[in-house]
Amino acid sequence: MSVPSSHSTPDLSGVFAYVDVHRQAFLERLIDYVRRPSISAYGEGIDVVANYIAGIMRQIGLEARVMPTAGWPMVIGESTAQPDRPTVLLYGHYDVQPPDPLEEWVSPPFEPTIRDGRLYARGVGDNKGQHFAQVLALECLLACHGTLPCNVKVLLEGEEEVGSPHMPDFVAEHRHDLQADLVIISDGPVHENGQSTICFGVRGVLDLELRARGANRDLHSGNWGGIVPNPLWTLVHLLASMKNKRGEITIDGFYEHVQPLNELERQALSNLPLDVEEVKRSLELQRLDEPQERNYFERLAAWPTLTINGIHGGYGGPGSKTVLPHEAIAKCDIRLVEAQTVEDILAKVKAHVQRHAPQVSVISSGGMDPSKTPLDSLYTEPLRQAISAAQGAEPLLVPAMGGSLPEYVFTKTLGIPTFGVPYANADEANHAPNENLEIERFFMGIKTGAAMLAYLGAMKQS
Amino acid sequence: MSVPSSHSTPDLSGVFAYVDVHRQAFLERLIDYVRRPSISAYGEGIDVVANYIAGIMRQIGLEARVMPTAGWPMVIGESTAQPDRPTVLLYGHYDVQPPDPLEEWVSPPFEPTIRDGRLYARGVGDNKGQHFAQVLALECLLACHGTLPCNVKVLLEGEEEVGSPHMPDFVAEHRHDLQADLVIISDGPVHENGQSTICFGVRGVLDLELRARGANRDLHSGNWGGIVPNPLWTLVHLLASMKNKRGEITIDGFYEHVQPLNELERQALSNLPLDVEEVKRSLELQRLDEPQERNYFERLAAWPTLTINGIHGGYGGPGSKTVLPHEAIAKCDIRLVEAQTVEDILAKVKAHVQRHAPQVSVISSGGMDPSKTPLDSLYTEPLRQAISAAQGAEPLLVPAMGGSLPEYVFTKTLGIPTFGVPYANADEANHAPNENLEIERFFMGIKTGAAMLAYLGAMKQS
Repeated sequence: MSVPSSHSTPDLSGVFAYVDVHRQAFLERLIDYVRRPSISAYGEGIDVVANYIAGIMRQIGLEARVMPTAGWPMVIGESTAQPDRPTVLLYGHYDVQPPDPLEEWVSPPFEPTIRDGRLYARGVGDNKGQHFAQVLALECLLACHGTLPCNVKVLLEGEEEVGSPHMPDFVAEHRHDLQADLVIISDGPVHENGQSTICFGVRGVLDLELRARGANRDLHSGNWGGIVPNPLWTLVHLLASMKNKRGEITIDGFYEHVQPLNELERQALSNLPLDVEEVKRSLELQRLDEPQERNYFERLAAWPTLTINGIHGGYGGPGSKTVLPHEAIAKCDIRLVEAQTVEDILAKVKAHVQRHAPQVSVISSGGMDPSKTPLDSLYTEPLRQAISAAQGAEPLLVPAMGGSLPEYVFTKTLGIPTFGVPYANADEANHAPNENLEIERFFMGIKTGAAMLAYLGAMKQS
Repeated sequence: MSVPSSHSTPDLSGVFAYVDVHRQAFLERLIDYVRRPSISAYGEGIDVVANYIAGIMRQIGLEARVMPTAGWPMVIGESTAQPDRPTVLLYGHYDVQPPDPLEEWVSPPFEPTIRDGRLYARGVGDNKGQHFAQVLALECLLACHGTLPCNVKVLLEGEEEVGSPHMPDFVAEHRHDLQADLVIISDGPVHENGQSTICFGVRGVLDLELRARGANRDLHSGNWGGIVPNPLWTLVHLLASMKNKRGEITIDGFYEHVQPLNELERQALSNLPLDVEEVKRSLELQRLDEPQERNYFERLAAWPTLTINGIHGGYGGPGSKTVLPHEAIAKCDIRLVEAQTVEDILAKVKAHVQRHAPQVSVISSGGMDPSKTPLDSLYTEPLRQAISAAQGAEPLLVPAMGGSLPEYVFTKTLGIPTFGVPYANADEANHAPNENLEIERFFMGIKTGAAMLAYLGAMKQS
């Protein structure tokens, strides 16, 4: 691996002009891409689109392969001829969500339509428009300079919308081929105020199902209450033993590996736009969750969560029914922060349940480890400068927080820093009808992609 | 009210012989009664049957009235010409459960059919066969002796199977007309081992619905967990504050009015047949509910319960869903023991919720107060002796326990001791297809009814 130490300022005026000149052609090519369904949930168009995007990468001069997995294939394109430059792994996914409910689309999901400066089509924001911008950035750089400013590997997954079931194994098995100095992921939206962001990770996630049983059938509460254990009470007491009223998770050792935020992260969080009163107003909340004293963004970045997703057991119809139910289920998820792991936390949950309610079954399909890239990474500054140069405005720095993606395959399996640089508008309506991408953001994505590679390539090598 | 002080042994041989001679006629008359539907749930046949049973009471010489309520009418028959004798109020109900599911009946529900010594028909056990036996007991006594041994009021309700919505008001409004020295209720089954019972009351019941809300919509657990309160956690912590893991209800003041069992009640409970291992085996239980050290029947007689009937909120489908739900409901019932009241306990629950989770709504449709008659009532001994004389075996004495009926309208509103003396077999299948009554129990009911009145009438007046 090359070890960059500092950088000079690249001249991007030619590339930006090239993008401006080719706006119409690039937009038409994006339209040609998003009109092709590639729905991983039921496989529609997957092979066609995998080969289509591989073909486009070959046309611009990358070596491209469609690589099989036990599910839908991965597409890899690369250009790695410059051993003294950093290598960037660009991740995206060519699969899209199913378009249902079809009747809610103003224009059909696979007939891309422009309205009010936005292109409407399934997958245009999530994620075709974003990784296509990255690919076009490579095309522009090659057209203007004949070479790329650094080494590039493009990895496009075909199963992101169905939970990336084969990513962890694929990345582990191909860790040599995928080795790079950093990963850039352009997926999801910019900040809702429109500002660009650099995201430094995600929380992990782990799902849990707690199943409690009482008798072998529902019973009359008058004849059996107080005699026969009630699985709903079992779950209530078990859950209450796992998190207290103050909002503290009380599973033994749960916080053991939690890393405190550092000063840079705290600073970054405090720079994020926030209007707590507006949040409360829009969600009709009287107050935030416990503990009250926690800083808003630290709740999402510094702290793991234990969320009950659902509890179901016994009577739920109108009025009342004096039944003593015989089974009940609680579904939960745990969001993990650095350096918690799915394996360790699941073991701790199981030990806790064994200690407090051994009759309760714990079922988990596993989950995803958290991913965290240091804000003071060597690559932060060139990425920040590149985004500013392409967009004319500073990006927000967003420490690892919130939801979960299998980003740990890059930071943990490959061991390399990973940066999220989303291009889509916050109201892209991904996973919903009328998915769209602001067309200017698409062009800005091409420029940003080119600028990031140029700034990374300009880093002085030690 | 007369005050009986002791009793002599009445001669019942003539009455018992009269019953034996008229078996076939009595059975045919029962068949004629139960073939007439009187389904309170939708009113079918109610008026016809109310007038039918009033007519029968008139034929045997009672004054009988069909009295309107805001719902289905009450039928009252009486013979109260003997001011120096006790007055017995005999309660029953002429309405029956709907017969669904019809396809599971071996013979149609309103075509009474005899098989294997049982009469099959809807309502034959619950409750027509039982109060008809009481009425025939009066007929037999009058036929044999020309007068009744004590004063009798028969009260037949038409809405028992729909929760007796008008009983409390009716009894309160007619407390003078209904005044008596004791109440006898022949409903429900004898002990499952076939032994007759005298039941001294029931627990009360109160229903509760706890409704919690978080935001105004479901949210993503990764983006909002730790920020937005989760109504399922709210319910878990609220419920855990209402009853601890040891099985103790921790609502402030909850046990305040609970009366300890007296020695007679403990003795009676210890005489009840019990095979705990068989109970556990048949319900596939490893252990009984907490607290472990409680005596089996004291759980049902001495202790109130707080049963969660159901909890529903959030995701309950297959697999997992990382949702932070926005609303959740818990439905509960509380069984009350003497001298708790619905009013007091509901106020305590509301105060508790107000203190621990004021954002949770408490909804209750109310309930029924408990009913308890002392085992050392003056009437216990004559009833015990009458049952032994009619049936040739001692009855079990069953202290107030288990499920709930509006019996408090007699013990509390009227203020008079109330005794349950059921005649039906334990497998009567009430509320189910193929409801039935062992024919011998019907004849034994007539004899028992006559004997009880004879022994009560033989009590020496002070």
